[in-house]
Amino acid sequence: MKKKVLLCHNFLKEGFESLEDDFELIYPDKQIFTKNDVIERIEDIDVLVPNFTFRTDAEIIDKGSKLKLIANYGVGYNTIDVDYAASKGVVVTNTPESVLEPTAELCFALILTAARRIGYYNNKLHNKEKLSWGIFDNLGLPIYGKTLGIYGMGRIGQAVARRAKASGMKIIYHNRHRLGKDIEDKYEAGYVNFDELLRQSDFLSLNAPATAENYHLMGKDEFEKMKPTAIFVNTARGSLVDEKALADALLNKKIFAAGIDVFENEPNIHPALLDLDNVVLTPHAGTTTYDGRMNMEKEVARNILNFFKGGTINRVN
Amino acid sequence: MKKKVLLCHNFLKEGFESLEDDFELIYPDKQIFTKNDVIERIEDIDVLVPNFTFRTDAEIIDKGSKLKLIANYGVGYNTIDVDYAASKGVVVTNTPESVLEPTAELCFALILTAARRIGYYNNKLHNKEKLSWGIFDNLGLPIYGKTLGIYGMGRIGQAVARRAKASGMKIIYHNRHRLGKDIEDKYEAGYVNFDELLRQSDFLSLNAPATAENYHLMGKDEFEKMKPTAIFVNTARGSLVDEKALADALLNKKIFAAGIDVFENEPNIHPALLDLDNVVLTPHAGTTTYDGRMNMEKEVARNILNFFKGGTINRVN
Repeated sequence: MKKKVLLCHNFLKEGFESLEDDFELIYPDKQIFTKNDVIERIEDIDVLVPNFTFRTDAEIIDKGSKLKLIANYGVGYNTIDVDYAASKGVVVTNTPESVLEPTAELCFALILTAARRIGYYNNKLHNKEKLSWGIFDNLGLPIYGKTLGIYGMGRIGQAVARRAKASGMKIIYHNRHRLGKDIEDKYEAGYVNFDELLRQSDFLSLNAPATAENYHLMGKDEFEKMKPTAIFVNTARGSLVDEKALADALLNKKIFAAGIDVFENEPNIHPALLDLDNVVLTPHAGTTTYDGRMNMEKEVARNILNFFKGGTINRVN
Repeated sequence: MKKKVLLCHNFLKEGFESLEDDFELIYPDKQIFTKNDVIERIEDIDVLVPNFTFRTDAEIIDKGSKLKLIANYGVGYNTIDVDYAASKGVVVTNTPESVLEPTAELCFALILTAARRIGYYNNKLHNKEKLSWGIFDNLGLPIYGKTLGIYGMGRIGQAVARRAKASGMKIIYHNRHRLGKDIEDKYEAGYVNFDELLRQSDFLSLNAPATAENYHLMGKDEFEKMKPTAIFVNTARGSLVDEKALADALLNKKIFAAGIDVFENEPNIHPALLDLDNVVLTPHAGTTTYDGRMNMEKEVARNILNFFKGGTINRVN
């Protein structure tokens, strides 16, 4: 009998073609399976594929008596109770390969868009509002020659650093663990503590996974420590930032601008951010390209195939 | 007696400090000198500093009987009758050094912003319009792995190529003259003819100066040859593009998106472009940063000093 894979989202079929011979793929007949839908079906399911917004909690894991693998569609797995899964012998995998370049790309795009005020200009022009073209009006900031501080210098952080270095930026970073000299040399990146990161960065980018420890890492005090000319970018997770404190910092020019892709209560954005013209907003779009979506599906499929047939999987628990 | 420098714009004084000992600097007491203002004053002027929108024509050059140098603030000198100036023994200089990185930076920012639909997302969110956050909704395009075609592979084109290569793009280019193998190798850039550039590029960026020959280089036929998934970026000069044809191509999905910083009749933009949500618009902002403006002034000042004292100048005629 074929193993059963429950997919929580009406994914593109093309990305899971490699599974069709050996697995029974169960897609929702609507856009998504809700938690109740999953609980109703989980009992004889071998593999659960949650998308990055679906919460896979202890209740679901308990009811999945045949569940062997939770193959997450996404790199962040803060939506999955990975420790509980481990205690029940259920493996959790994610998709770090496929999200790497698209997310670094969006992160770098937000750095540029916020610095050069492209969101502001574009909105003014499309809304047919008054905008001076004067030589010294509405000046933005360059990124060339400036210092980019990266909080979380993992694979995505390093992919951002590669782009930044080619664009003339100096790199500093903070991590739980300092990187090896070979990696630091590759990006000419200097290790600093978190306080120095806040104070020295002309641009500060969060590229760390969400954890209990970094909840509201960036609050009023942290934004106060930043330069008034600094630009803050978050493409990691919304829980790392106190959105109200960010909005206050932007309103009161404690920092110059921001580019924000992730929010604490998606799809809701703190209303104070919506009215500020010095923040560029995107709807958790780190991987929202056709290529990105397809590559994520293929990575999920590879994790599932290799889990059962042997081979490398991106195991996180 | 000190030589007299007439500055057509109320520039920041700081950038011209190096001239103060040896030159008399004449600034407008309002934002700019008009053509009439300049004609009234030009007779005993040694150096004219036009900004990049001021038109320095034969009439001004004729009236400037003591004029020795036109030290343009900007790299593009299509606003100056350089041949007529040469015939009268008047040297023209420009500021290629200082505009290089800021312009390449904006160009690359527009490539990213248009591809990843950041302008669209940002406007929808700030304007509080409906925007789906669904996994497969409003997909953009990645730049990673795609082909960037560069029309005009001079210094700015190469600075764009450097950023693009670090972001995983493949480079092709078209130029009047093919570059040396060393430069091609540096960017792994392939030379193609203009027709191939149009057909093969996933992204097409114009980085050539405006000339009589490239007036409306991009018209209906050229956009038709591009891929329907292609993105077009212009940070060069507005005269290279038929704006109506561009708007039609964007409206009819002949191309996917565009990022446009320069326009034929600045500060006016063809109204058809304003209503399209797949074009990112910026107000000739290639150098609109504080650092950029200051560096341009310092380069103008260096051209003036070196012209009289000996040393390198960026002469264009």
